[in-house]
Amino acid sequence: MAVSSVVRAQLGRASWIRRMFEEGARLRAQLGKDAVIDLSLGNPEVEPPPAFHQTLERVVQHELGPGAHRYMHNAGLPETREAVAAALAAEFGLPFTRDDIVMCCGAAAGLNLVLKAVLEPGDEVVVLAPYFPEYPFYVENHGGRLREVPTRADFSLDPDALARALGPRTAALIVNSPNNPTGRLLSAAELDAIAGLLRERAPRALLVSDEPYRRLVFSGQRFASVLGRHARAVVVGSHSKDLAVPGERIGYVALSPEMPPAERAELAAALAFLTRTLGYVNAPALMQRVVRHLQGLSVDPAVYERRARLVVPALRAMGYEVVEPGGAFYCFPRTPIPDDVAFALALAEQERVLVVPGTGFGAPGHFRISLCVATERLERALPALARALQRHAPKPAPAEGR
Amino acid sequence: MAVSSVVRAQLGRASWIRRMFEEGARLRAQLGKDAVIDLSLGNPEVEPPPAFHQTLERVVQHELGPGAHRYMHNAGLPETREAVAAALAAEFGLPFTRDDIVMCCGAAAGLNLVLKAVLEPGDEVVVLAPYFPEYPFYVENHGGRLREVPTRADFSLDPDALARALGPRTAALIVNSPNNPTGRLLSAAELDAIAGLLRERAPRALLVSDEPYRRLVFSGQRFASVLGRHARAVVVGSHSKDLAVPGERIGYVALSPEMPPAERAELAAALAFLTRTLGYVNAPALMQRVVRHLQGLSVDPAVYERRARLVVPALRAMGYEVVEPGGAFYCFPRTPIPDDVAFALALAEQERVLVVPGTGFGAPGHFRISLCVATERLERALPALARALQRHAPKPAPAEGR
Repeated sequence: MAVSSVVRAQLGRASWIRRMFEEGARLRAQLGKDAVIDLSLGNPEVEPPPAFHQTLERVVQHELGPGAHRYMHNAGLPETREAVAAALAAEFGLPFTRDDIVMCCGAAAGLNLVLKAVLEPGDEVVVLAPYFPEYPFYVENHGGRLREVPTRADFSLDPDALARALGPRTAALIVNSPNNPTGRLLSAAELDAIAGLLRERAPRALLVSDEPYRRLVFSGQRFASVLGRHARAVVVGSHSKDLAVPGERIGYVALSPEMPPAERAELAAALAFLTRTLGYVNAPALMQRVVRHLQGLSVDPAVYERRARLVVPALRAMGYEVVEPGGAFYCFPRTPIPDDVAFALALAEQERVLVVPGTGFGAPGHFRISLCVATERLERALPALARALQRHAPKPAPAEGR
Repeated sequence: MAVSSVVRAQLGRASWIRRMFEEGARLRAQLGKDAVIDLSLGNPEVEPPPAFHQTLERVVQHELGPGAHRYMHNAGLPETREAVAAALAAEFGLPFTRDDIVMCCGAAAGLNLVLKAVLEPGDEVVVLAPYFPEYPFYVENHGGRLREVPTRADFSLDPDALARALGPRTAALIVNSPNNPTGRLLSAAELDAIAGLLRERAPRALLVSDEPYRRLVFSGQRFASVLGRHARAVVVGSHSKDLAVPGERIGYVALSPEMPPAERAELAAALAFLTRTLGYVNAPALMQRVVRHLQGLSVDPAVYERRARLVVPALRAMGYEVVEPGGAFYCFPRTPIPDDVAFALALAEQERVLVVPGTGFGAPGHFRISLCVATERLERALPALARALQRHAPKPAPAEGR
C-alpha cells in the first residue's frame, strides 16, 4: 500500500483510460506502429510557428545575461506579464496591467491555482458537460465538489439546467470555448446568459474561462470572451496549442480589470503565493522570455479546419451524429451504442483505430476523435469508422422500442 | 472575500515575511538599492557552469527536431530519465532504471507530488527543525499534519525526540542535507539512526530526502545518502542550485530500487498521474533535454565555502553563537534576543541589513544569513552585525536570571 486511498481511487477511476492505452500499446507492439491509427491524443503534431524557433534562438544567444535563470517574483517576469497584459488589453479593450497577470506552467497549473485560491471545503465547481476530463481531479485536489451541468444534444447551453446547479455553494463556474472535446464555441448570447445567471444565483462565484484553444477558431466563427461580461472573471490562457509547445508548460492567469479592486488584489496575491506553495514556484524562466515576444502569434487553425471539413461530413454520410466543431482540434460524434467504452475498445480491437470514449468527458454515448493527426491517417481511419458503425448499428427496434 | 479561509490564513501566517520584504522594499526605495545589504534570499548569484550555456545552445540549434516541444509521458523524456537513473546508479551503487525516475518542476514540485501520493487525511509528516519554511504549506496542501522534531543546539539529531514523534500516523519523514537554513549535513550515523527508528516505529513511512544542495558540499565534508539505508526511500533532486538555474524549474523524484517492487510500481504510477492532475503535466521539455547531458555537473561550492569561512569566524569573534555549515549557502546564528523577528526588523531599520528570522524555519531565536551575496557585500554587512549584537547583547542578568 504505497499510495493514499484517494489517489488509489483516482487511479482506479481512470482505469478505462489505461485499458485503452494498454490496448493501443499492445496492438502497436503486435502489429507495428503503422498498423494502428491513433486518434486519441490532443497533442499538436503541427510544429510551432517559425517565429517561435527564431525567437528561442535569439533569446538563447542574446538575451540570457547574468541572472537570466534565477528565481524571480512568483507571478513571473515583469516584462512578460506586461506583454501579456498589453496583448489582452488590445484584444479585449480592458485596462489590463501586469499586476493582473500571473504566469503559470500552462493552463493545467493555472486552473489548479485558481481553484486552490477560492475553494472552501465542499464548495461546488460548476462545469458544462462535455468537459475536459481533468477538471474533476483539479477540483478534488483542493477539496471542492464537481457539479456537472448537461448541455443540449447540440452541446448548446441549457439555461434551466445551469440555473438549477447554481447557488450559495457555487464557488466557481468553468467554461471552455472552443471546447475540448466538442470543438464548439460558446456564443456571445450563451455567455451573456451564463453571466446573468451567475449574477442572479451565485453573485460571488468566479467565472473561470479555460482558453487553451482561444486562437484555434475556424473561419466564420467568432470567439466570445467572458471579459466585459462578468466582473468576477478569470482567464486561464496557455501557449500549448497556439504556439504548439505543450511540453514547455507556459501559460498565464489573467484577472479581469473589472473585478472589484480589493478582491482582485487579494486574488492576485493568493495566486502568486500558491504558485510558490503548490510547487510550481514560477513558470519556466526561459519560456517566459520567449513568449514575451510572441503574444498573439498562433499556428494556422486552417489545418485543423480542413481536417474537420473532411471528417465531419464523411462521418455524417456514414450515419454518425456529430456536431460541427467551430475550433480546437476535435470532433465528438455519438456512438452507435450507448456503451462508449465498449465501442471504443471494439474499434481498437477490430479496426486498430484508437479514440477516447465520452464517459471521461461527462458525456457517455459519444467518442472523441482528435484532428491532431496527419490528414492521410484520418482518411485511412474513415472506412474503419464506417465499418464500426455498420457493425454496431442499432437493429430494427423490437416491440419495447429504444 | 476573494480567497478561501485556508489560503487567507496561510497568507496571514506568512505576514511577518511580508513585513520583512516590505521593510526591505521601503528602505531600498528611500535610500537606494546599494544602501541595503540583502542577506535574505537563497537565490544563487553565481552563474550556471559554462557547460550549461554551451549545452543549451547546442540543444536549441541541433536537438530540437519535429515534436521536440510536444506532450510526453508525464514522468518525462525516456532519455532524460535514463540519464538521471544512470548517474544515480553510478553515484550510489543501486540499480536505478528510468522507471524509478519522475522528472519534475524542481524540488518544490517533487515534494508536493510525493506528499500528495502518500498522505491520508490527518497523516503526519515528520520534519527535523530547523526546516525549509515551505514544508508546512506542502503538507497542508494535501491534508497532512506537520510534526516538528527539535534537534540539539548544534542541530544534530536528537534520537529520543525523533522516537517520540514517530508512530502509526507517520506517513513520511523529510530530511534535508545539506540543510536550509543551517548548512549542516546529516552524518551517516545520524541517517542510520533515523532509518533504524523508522523501521522500529513507523515501518510503512516513506523516508523523503530533499536534496537541492547535494552537490554543494564543502571540503572535508561528506554527503551521506538515505539510499542503501532505508528501502522505502525517495530522493527529491533539483538542478536549481547545482546548475544555478532555479528559475527553470527542473528536478526529479527518484524511488529507491530497494523499495518493495509492487509499492515502487504503484508509487511511480501515482507520481506520474499526479504530475498530470496537479497541473505540472511534465517538467519543461527543453530543460529536460538540457539537463540530460549535465548529470553530475555543479557550480563550484568553493565560492560558498570561502564566504562561510569568512563570515562564521567573524560572527563568532563578535560573540554570536553559530554552527559551522558543511554545505549549501547559509549560516544560521542565534539571535542575541529571543525575539528573532524583532531582531531582524531592527537590523533592517538600524543597519539596512536584511536577514530572515528563524521563526519560519521552526527555530525561533535564530536568523538566517544567505551566502548567495557578493563577498564584498558580506564584508560590508559584518560591522553592522557587530553593532546589532552590541545593541541587543543581553544585559547582565537581573536577580531572576534568564
